[in-house]
This record gives sequence, structure tokens and C-alpha cells, in this order.
Amino acid sequence: MRVGVLTGGGDCPGLNAVIRGIVRKGVQEYGYTFTGFRDGWRGALEGHAVPLDIPAVRGILPRGGTILGSSRTNPLRAEHGVRRIKENLAKAEVDALVAIGGEDTLGVAATLSGEYGVPCVGVPKTIDNDLSATDYTFGFDTAVGIATEAIDRLHTTAESHMRVLVVEVMGRHAGWIALHSGLAGGANVILIPEQRFDVEQVCAWVESRFRATYAPIVVVAEGAMPKDGDVVLKDGSRDSFGHVRLSGVGEWLAKEIERRTGKEARTTVLGHVQRGGTPSAFDRWLATRFGLHAIDAVRDGDFGKMVALRGTKIVRVPIAEATARLKTVDPELYAEAGVFFG
Amino acid sequence: MRVGVLTGGGDCPGLNAVIRGIVRKGVQEYGYTFTGFRDGWRGALEGHAVPLDIPAVRGILPRGGTILGSSRTNPLRAEHGVRRIKENLAKAEVDALVAIGGEDTLGVAATLSGEYGVPCVGVPKTIDNDLSATDYTFGFDTAVGIATEAIDRLHTTAESHMRVLVVEVMGRHAGWIALHSGLAGGANVILIPEQRFDVEQVCAWVESRFRATYAPIVVVAEGAMPKDGDVVLKDGSRDSFGHVRLSGVGEWLAKEIERRTGKEARTTVLGHVQRGGTPSAFDRWLATRFGLHAIDAVRDGDFGKMVALRGTKIVRVPIAEATARLKTVDPELYAEAGVFFG
Amino acid sequence: MRVGVLTGGGDCPGLNAVIRGIVRKGVQEYGYTFTGFRDGWRGALEGHAVPLDIPAVRGILPRGGTILGSSRTNPLRAEHGVRRIKENLAKAEVDALVAIGGEDTLGVAATLSGEYGVPCVGVPKTIDNDLSATDYTFGFDTAVGIATEAIDRLHTTAESHMRVLVVEVMGRHAGWIALHSGLAGGANVILIPEQRFDVEQVCAWVESRFRATYAPIVVVAEGAMPKDGDVVLKDGSRDSFGHVRLSGVGEWLAKEIERRTGKEARTTVLGHVQRGGTPSAFDRWLATRFGLHAIDAVRDGDFGKMVALRGTKIVRVPIAEATARLKTVDPELYAEAGVFFG
Amino acid sequence: MRVGVLTGGGDCPGLNAVIRGIVRKGVQEYGYTFTGFRDGWRGALEGHAVPLDIPAVRGILPRGGTILGSSRTNPLRAEHGVRRIKENLAKAEVDALVAIGGEDTLGVAATLSGEYGVPCVGVPKTIDNDLSATDYTFGFDTAVGIATEAIDRLHTTAESHMRVLVVEVMGRHAGWIALHSGLAGGANVILIPEQRFDVEQVCAWVESRFRATYAPIVVVAEGAMPKDGDVVLKDGSRDSFGHVRLSGVGEWLAKEIERRTGKEARTTVLGHVQRGGTPSAFDRWLATRFGLHAIDAVRDGDFGKMVALRGTKIVRVPIAEATARLKTVDPELYAEAGVFFG
Repeated sequence: MRVGVLTGGGDCPGLNAVIRGIVRKGVQEYGYTFTGFRDGWRGALEGHAVPLDIPAVRGILPRGGTILGSSRTNPLRAEHGVRRIKENLAKAEVDALVAIGGEDTLGVAATLSGEYGVPCVGVPKTIDNDLSATDYTFGFDTAVGIATEAIDRLHTTAESHMRVLVVEVMGRHAGWIALHSGLAGGANVILIPEQRFDVEQVCAWVESRFRATYAPIVVVAEGAMPKDGDVVLKDGSRDSFGHVRLSGVGEWLAKEIERRTGKEARTTVLGHVQRGGTPSAFDRWLATRFGLHAIDAVRDGDFGKMVALRGTKIVRVPIAEATARLKTVDPELYAEAGVFFG
Repeated sequence: MRVGVLTGGGDCPGLNAVIRGIVRKGVQEYGYTFTGFRDGWRGALEGHAVPLDIPAVRGILPRGGTILGSSRTNPLRAEHGVRRIKENLAKAEVDALVAIGGEDTLGVAATLSGEYGVPCVGVPKTIDNDLSATDYTFGFDTAVGIATEAIDRLHTTAESHMRVLVVEVMGRHAGWIALHSGLAGGANVILIPEQRFDVEQVCAWVESRFRATYAPIVVVAEGAMPKDGDVVLKDGSRDSFGHVRLSGVGEWLAKEIERRTGKEARTTVLGHVQRGGTPSAFDRWLATRFGLHAIDAVRDGDFGKMVALRGTKIVRVPIAEATARLKTVDPELYAEAGVFFG
Repeated sequence: MRVGVLTGGGDCPGLNAVIRGIVRKGVQEYGYTFTGFRDGWRGALEGHAVPLDIPAVRGILPRGGTILGSSRTNPLRAEHGVRRIKENLAKAEVDALVAIGGEDTLGVAATLSGEYGVPCVGVPKTIDNDLSATDYTFGFDTAVGIATEAIDRLHTTAESHMRVLVVEVMGRHAGWIALHSGLAGGANVILIPEQRFDVEQVCAWVESRFRATYAPIVVVAEGAMPKDGDVVLKDGSRDSFGHVRLSGVGEWLAKEIERRTGKEARTTVLGHVQRGGTPSAFDRWLATRFGLHAIDAVRDGDFGKMVALRGTKIVRVPIAEATARLKTVDPELYAEAGVFFG
Repeated sequence: MRVGVLTGGGDCPGLNAVIRGIVRKGVQEYGYTFTGFRDGWRGALEGHAVPLDIPAVRGILPRGGTILGSSRTNPLRAEHGVRRIKENLAKAEVDALVAIGGEDTLGVAATLSGEYGVPCVGVPKTIDNDLSATDYTFGFDTAVGIATEAIDRLHTTAESHMRVLVVEVMGRHAGWIALHSGLAGGANVILIPEQRFDVEQVCAWVESRFRATYAPIVVVAEGAMPKDGDVVLKDGSRDSFGHVRLSGVGEWLAKEIERRTGKEARTTVLGHVQRGGTPSAFDRWLATRFGLHAIDAVRDGDFGKMVALRGTKIVRVPIAEATARLKTVDPELYAEAGVFFG
């Protein structure tokens, strides 16, 4: 049995741990051999295969990124995409495929498996934690840890100066990183994409915080949007408030707070720092176990499925179930955090 | 409504986050007032009460330890213990009690609640993660993170020298910290209290590792014991191998490996470093939510219960259910890790 | 003998370590008593004095910020500023003053000491490391460490994506943080305020890096400026390139690189994260020693001086010498780093 | 010009940064080619040469250990050692050698250079910081940082329990790591090899600390020894107090404190954790600059010299000057720290 492995979509700490788990168990316990495809589906589409054996996965557990490279190529949109993939798998003598990726990567795996008879197993990956059917995805804990450490450091400045500190964190469509890091870091305002925010309310929290203790820390997901305004623009055009927004929502919000409250405000934009570097212990544990269970699914011939975390167990679910809808922050959970606002 | 709060047992990062969650929600949403009892049940027994309000919990979220102090006092074993506690609660005008602690502390809460009509809610705490009825307890993720970082650092030395590196981590009765940090750190041998280890097998793994790549890292829980030997002694008496063991199992094992394989071995004993310092983001999130849900249980009059994590939800379970038996490492889970041994 | 202590200017990890060093040695070895003035010179001007004894400095060593607060108030510009300060010192029975701060705070100390007979000793503080007469100032090592860790994390993404990563770090007038963190982090371009940069050259480095290995990391000090352009604006007006720059130079540079090279570019703006949180071990050591030696200077009646680091020794230098000119990055040192560009 | 590079002695974070600095500058600015010798002098002795070019040094800056391997082989003690080295250098067409290492490795370089006409430049390396002629050696700052973080974490436990916490850190002959980390971590007792300690005095400090605030933290260098006793033994024989000491001085001291004060004491032994993992920003900066300046010395034909840090400058000194005597902790500096004891 020869198994192909590929990683698709954005960077995420833990990808290498998955690959290592798959290969170690596959080789040692089941006697499989492995082929890696470079840069996600692009490698499968273009026949860019690399050998993947135990020496190749030595030392990669603590390393961010992916030794196989990644891309956002969607082979279903490429000419003769399915046929070319099938040909390349045949050429590489690959009997089954493990696809590690987010919604898009897994969606392709589901289609290939369900409609075209390519035996695929999925491993879910999204740093934003917005994939249904799994309690957590690896990379998320690392990102939350990095954002929380940044917020911790900002408290010092907040204590000794009168500056509002705005931290923009990842989360285009779901506010999980903002919610978890904001709660863990003791932020005074947390803004998520799931609920448009009222700038006046934000300013009221800012001012009540100043009265109660010291300067506030505002955590805002990059995808959060004001209630009575337009989407946040990055292209220099004017928004409905008449502001030019070359930068993200964090910078924009800081300026709005300054304008409305008269307090100085400063912004931290963590950007890709959140998705790089060594994975947290939790993410390595989760990613490793995902890898071990994915190769078990291959052995069981349980294709079209992906591994998922439920409590402390790894289970298998149909890929389609997981990619059908985004897992956004439950309003009740967000409300629970509200006790710490202001 | 006035609510008493106390923390009992060993140190654990996240205790302050629980206290803060309880007080912030209790005061702001339910209008409760709070009284802290110093040093666990001892404070309740001796009437050592301190005021606990919002200013008292400011800034404590990221801090390890507990602002209320702790002890291992069991009031049920004290003369007129129950009566004295009841008197002190009455004197302090406390209507309900939140007890944050491990098996012992919670056991007292269960008894007081069930047999003596003292309204108690429990919050589980054990850095070893060995409490049933909850997926995780706070403090555990922090400890695993610290141990994993230490293992990461040892890999460097393992790569460039021919020394076996033994790391002794916490875990007297359950090997959760050893298992998780060993897996996350890429250890080559993981030894847990749940399964007596065979020193010969350990040496075989050590030697196969040397042949395959470089020097091995052995993670051993402080409570792990050799198969064909006695418990590990710390008092200087001789064990059944004829060795004097003044130190823990880590130091002992290193010497055994040296003696049997002829390779140099060095030990790291992390000790209390694992239970101190700022909690990880995950632990702060969990501890904060435990606090928020514990005060909800008080409001609902749901006494004799403790909060617990199930997946991503906080639920309530009878305290007795959680303290009935130790949650040890499932043999299957331990076997899963075995693919990385040697 | 009663000694006053104050901290002025911007936030800087290590301020509390200095205060602790002064008080511990002053009380225990010389039998002095201490008075803190709140918020830098403002407290001395307005007579806002607080007691400062050994219990007050317990536990502050690892904490960022300053327990005495800070401000940018210049008492020499206040009406009757000198007289009011003298009156307040007399009222508080303060015989000598230790002023901890940057160029401005120390400048006031020099003037008060030299021209008005107020016995002052200085302790230099600038996170930017741009004060002459001392090898390093505390806070700098911490900031460099935080920036380096961020750059480390970005390498992961640089490896797996084709994105240029721009990191804006502190340094309005001197590029020390950019230079040290850029060198320590393995950046491919480092831009400092001391030398206007040529955007075309930056793009050439970016492109040569892409050809050689993978995506480049560009570290830019917030005060760095393009050669053939205007200063970077934050107020929305247009610069000489016709761009609106609402954000800092990092965001601006990313857009320029995108426009000129056609490669995607992303920005990380660390902001105040660099100046908050616990000081590094080096900074605690330096700050503590500064405190111990500052109180020795007071004991010796060596006023108008500040403590300074030379090699591994703490020496005393006239404050005026240190504040006369900014310590900027030596062109030779910057050139030395150039071997790693591109 | 072809230059040989080798790394000798114990592990030390920053070795790779030196190698990278040498190769990057040597290739890019001087057009040199490079050969690495494996495992220190052993590789030169046995002719184990590996190619060393720019691709070989990519990505190694943040990695601990050494890509060239290390050993403690002394070629001067090998049969025909010098002749064999000369032959191997000739065979590899190596014109000059850069030796990176401690006292022993550099001593060989000095002899080869001075007595046998082998052109050698040295780069000093000792994690213990005990080499004369340089303010600091790389690796030391990293070790101090790791030990300080451990001490920070122990404060939490010290605050909430009545346990004495003993931390054993590296330092066989010099107490630099103990002194710096103890001071930076706020330890209550610091014991170094340079001054035999009085266990009674240690216990007095322990008890005064308990009275003043909470439990004490004792930092002890592995080479520290009691005043009125024997050296600390690891082989199970009895010392002059009649104790068996299987473990190091940390474990021994904890037991002595328990016995004499009646307080519980716990030990943390960091071991090799202190010398592994990624170097601190300071160490990467220092090591990189050492590399850049070492290749400059080669270019200048300045053999028999090693690079050294003086203030913020890199200078060259005769190797013999640096290795003539150990740089131990100055009694005055140790006395300075005494204000924090007890």
C-alpha cells in the first residue's frame, strides 16, 4: 500500500506533526510506503511527487510550516483536473490520499472521494478554528497563546499610560482567536466578525474602563465590522464615515476612538506572527493524534471521512459534514465574555 | 446573597482566574457579595475570612498561585470541624460556598453539602489532570507546556552528544503530564505510573534510538515504577536492587541506564517549576469559564455539584461522581504513543 | 537621610527593578528612608509623594511598568517650577533625589543639580538604547527579544508562502532595535532612521531573496524614511509619492513593495508589545545594578552624575555628557550587517 | 583561500550562528571557500571533512547545537596528532582554520598556531562565561534566561506554600549563571563555587526569609561546596557529614535544610535544559558578530588570536591570554548581590 500526503491552504503550526504521525505509524505498524505531493493539490495536479519516509519526518514535530509546501490551487477548476490527478496518482502508484487542509482542500477531497472514486481521508486544518464537526483544530491554540502573550505585555503600558491599546488579531469570518485571547488576556473589549460592533458602545466601554482603573485594551478580529458603517476597506477608497482606510480595522478603530473620546490610542497588528513558529504542546498533541488516526482510517478503508476531536477522543466524520458550514462563535458564548467588558 | 470562596490543595496555575470569574460575574450580574476564606478549609474552620470584591480580583488573571492561600487541612478530621465551619459561615453571613480544589477539597465539599446541609459548589483543580468527570482541569496545559519546552531544549544536546537525557515530570498516580509532554516533545520513551516499566525494555529502546539517529530522551513521571523492583525510595534505604535512592525515579533511572548500557545519562528534574508562573491561555480560558459557571450553579441553587469540561461545554456533575475514582491514562492511549518509542 | 525617587518618560521594562535595588540597598545598608514621587517630575512639582519602603518593593522585580507611575511633565517649563520642586522636597524632608528616565527626565535632573543646588543622581532609561555614555540601557534587551521572537515566527510563513513580510519595530531616531532584532532574527533587509532607504534597493533585495531561497523578511524601524520621499505621515495627507499614509512606515513600505514587485506583502506592527511585560534576565540584572550603584552615588554625595554600563562595570558619568547627543547606529556597524541583506 | 571550521567541547546555543557568520561573510565578501571538520579536533585528526557553503548555513541561526558536531578530542595527545592534522589540512587544501570552542579547544589552536605554524583563529565558547579576556561568551545569556524563567515560576509556589525551593544551575568552577539568574530571579540565597558556603548561614537566611514574607528560593551552582564539609559526591559513598549523596548539591542542600530547619524543601535540577534550544537574541547577535570578525582576522592573517567582546566592540586578543586563567566571580560583585539575601 502506498499513500499520498498533501497539505493545502494557509500556514498553520502543526502541519508537520500530522505528516510525521501519518508516516511513523503507517510505516512502522502497517508497512505502508508514502509519497508527498508538493504544494497541496497543485502537486497532485502537476505530478510533483517527493519521497516521504521516516528519515524525512525526523525533527519536524516542533517546526511550523509544512515540509510539503502549500498552495490554494483548486484542481476541480483546472482543465481535466480530476483526470490529471488520477493519472498522477496512478503514475506514482498511490492507492490512497490523505489531504490535510481547510474547507477548500477538504472540499476537493470530499468531491474526489465521493464523486470520482479517489480514496481520500481528510485532516482538518484551520488556524481560525472555524471548521464544524471538530472541537478544535490544531494551530488555533498556538495563535491564541501568541495573541494572549501580546495582550499580557500591553497591560503594563495600559497601567502606566493613558493610552487605549487596540490589538488586531486573526479571524476573517469567525472570532474564536479574538474571543479566546481576549478572555485569556483580560481584554476590556472584544470585537468579533459575528456581531457588528457599535463604535459608540466601544467608546463607552473605553471611558468606563478609564474611570474604573486604567487604560483599556481592545481586541478586535481582523474581520470585525462596525454596525452602522461599511466593511473595512484596505484600498484607499472612502468608507461611509468619510475615512480613508488604508490599513485594517485595528488602525481604523484606534483613530475612531481617538476622535470620539479624545484619548490617545495605539495599535498592535500581529499579522502572520500568529501563524508561525513552533506549535504549542496542545497543538502538537492534537496534530500528532490526527495523523495517527488518519492513517488508521486509510487502513480501515474509511474514505470520504476526516478525523475530528470530540472531547478527548479522535473520531471520524464525513468530510461534507465538517465543511458544510462555518463554525462561528455562539452568541451565548460571546455574551458570557461580556461580563468583562468595560 | 453572600458567597464564600476558598482554594485548597497544591498550587495550580489558574486558581486566581477562577476566583476572578466568580467575583466579576457574581457582583456585576447577580449583585452578590463575597468573602474569601484563607488557606482552604483551614480558613473556614478557623474563621479566617477576608473581603473579596472587584478591586481585590483586578490584575490576578495572569498570576499563578492563589490570592486566598491554600492548605491541605481536612476539616472533617478536626474536632467539631463541621460545627465550627457552620458557625464561621453563619458569623460571616455566608449563604453558599464555592470550594476550588482537588479530590480532597471537593470531597469535603460533597460531604458538607450532602450530609450537613452546607450549600457548596465545587470547582475541580488538579495539575495532574487525574480527576474524573472532566475532560481537562486547568493547570495541566500549563504544566505540559513547560515540560514540553524543556524537552525541546534537550533535543539540541541529544543531537550533538551521546548522552541519554532523562526528564522527570510530575504525576504521582497518573501519567497525563508525561504522556502529553512526551508526545508533544518527541520523547523516545515515556514512562507512566499506570504501567510498571521494564528497565531492560527501556535500555533496548535507548540503544535502538542510538542506532537509528542520535541520543534518546526519556520522559518519566515521578510516580512511575520499575516492573521487577520496589517502589522508588527517597529516604536513603536500599531498594530491592541494592541501590540507595536518595533522589527520585529520574535520577535512579539515569543511573540504571548508565550501568546497563554504558552510555552516559543526565537527568533534569523540573519539580515545582511545572506548577508555577502564569497560566497558559487555555488554562486561563478554562479557569475563567469554570468560575463563571460555578457562580451560575450557586445562583441556581444547584449544590453538591461541580463544574466540568465536556468538549467545549461547561457542564455540572455531582461532586461525588468526579472524586469517586482517579482518572488514569487509558492503556489504549498509552499504546497509541508507543509508535514513537525507541 | 531621606531620598526621593521618581520615574519619568515612556514605559520601559526594568524600572521597577531599579526602584527595588535603590530601596533595598538604601534601607538595609545605609539606613536611609525613601519617598516616591508619583508620575515623574509631575509628582515632585505637585507634591504628590508616596511612602517607599521594603514591603512596597516586594515582588516588583519581574513586573514591567513602574509602581511610581510616569509622565512627560517638564517642571522647568512650569511656572515657578524649580521653586515648587524645592518646596515640595523640603516639605517631604527629602535630602536627595534619584531620577530614573530618558534624555528629558535626566536633563531636568542635570539642570536642577547643576544650576539650582538640588542634589540629584540619574539612572538612564530608554528602550531605544539611544543614550550616549552607556553601553546599554535596560528595556532594550527585552524589546529586542520580543521583536526577534516575532521575526522567528515569521520565517515559518516566509518559507511556505510567497509573501514579503514587513515588521515595523520601535526606534524613532535610532535603529538599535531594528538592527539587533533584524540581525538576531535573520532578516533580509534592515532599515534604520540613521540612513534614508532607497525603495528600489529594498525591492532589489526582496527579489534577489526570492530567487535565492524563499520569501524575505524586512525589518523597518518606525522612524526609517525613504531616500527620495517625504517623512512618513500618519494624518491622512498625501506624501510626495501621492500616497495617503494613514499608517506607519511598515504598512507604507509593504504597499510600495507590492506595487513595485508584484509580490504580496504583509505587515506586522508590534507597537507597545515591545515595551511591556516582564523584563529579560539581562535587563533585570542591569536595572538592579543601576539601582544599587545609584544609591551608592547618593551616599558618596556624587550629584549631577548618572550611572552607566561600560563593559561589565557600572560607572558614573556627568548627566550632561550622556544627554548631550543621541547615540545613533554607527554606519560601520550597519554596514557589517549588510552581508545578510538580500 | 579555503578555510576550515570546527566546533569543540560542550553544547552551547550560538555555535551555528558563528558558523553562519563566518561562511556568509567569507563567501560573499572575500570569495573564500569553506570546509567543515566534524566533531571538533577529532574531524581534523581523522580527516573527516564536509563541504560548508551558503546553502549549508541557511536556517541555522536560531538553532541550538552545532551542524558540525562536537567532541572533546585533544589531538595533541593523539599519536602523531599534529602531523596528522597538518596532513589532513593539506589534503583538504585548507589554508587556515577557525576553531570555535572553550579553554581546551582554543588551547589546541594556540599551540598549533604558535608552535607548529598552523594558521588558526579562535572563537571563544563557554556557556559558563568563565573565559577571561571577553566580557561575555554566547550561550551564557540563554542559560541565564532559562534559569531565571524557572526561578520566576517557583516564586508562585513559594508564595502559596511553606516550602523552601532549591534550584541547581550550571557552573562547575564559576558561579556566573547562579549569580546572574539568582539576581534576575530575585532569589533569596545564591551559592557559587568561588566561595564555600556555610549551611548554617543558609539556614539562617531561609528562616529570616520565612519570617519576613514567604518561602525562600535558593539558587545553587552545581559546583558550589559547603564550607565545613567535603566536596559533594555523586557516587554513593558517604561524605564527612555521614550522608550518602547520590545526587548533586541541590538535592543534598534541600535535605540539609529540611533536617536543620524542619521546613519542607524541594529541588529543581535544570541540567542540560540550560544549554539547549534556540539562543537568545543577545547570544545570536554576539555569536554572529564573533563569526564576522573571526573571518576578518583570517583575512588579516592575524593568527593565534581569538575574537572577544569588550563593551560593545569586538576585539582580537592572543588566545593564550584568554585561556591562561578562569574568569571567576569577583568577590565584590558577589558581595553586591548579598543585599538581597535572606
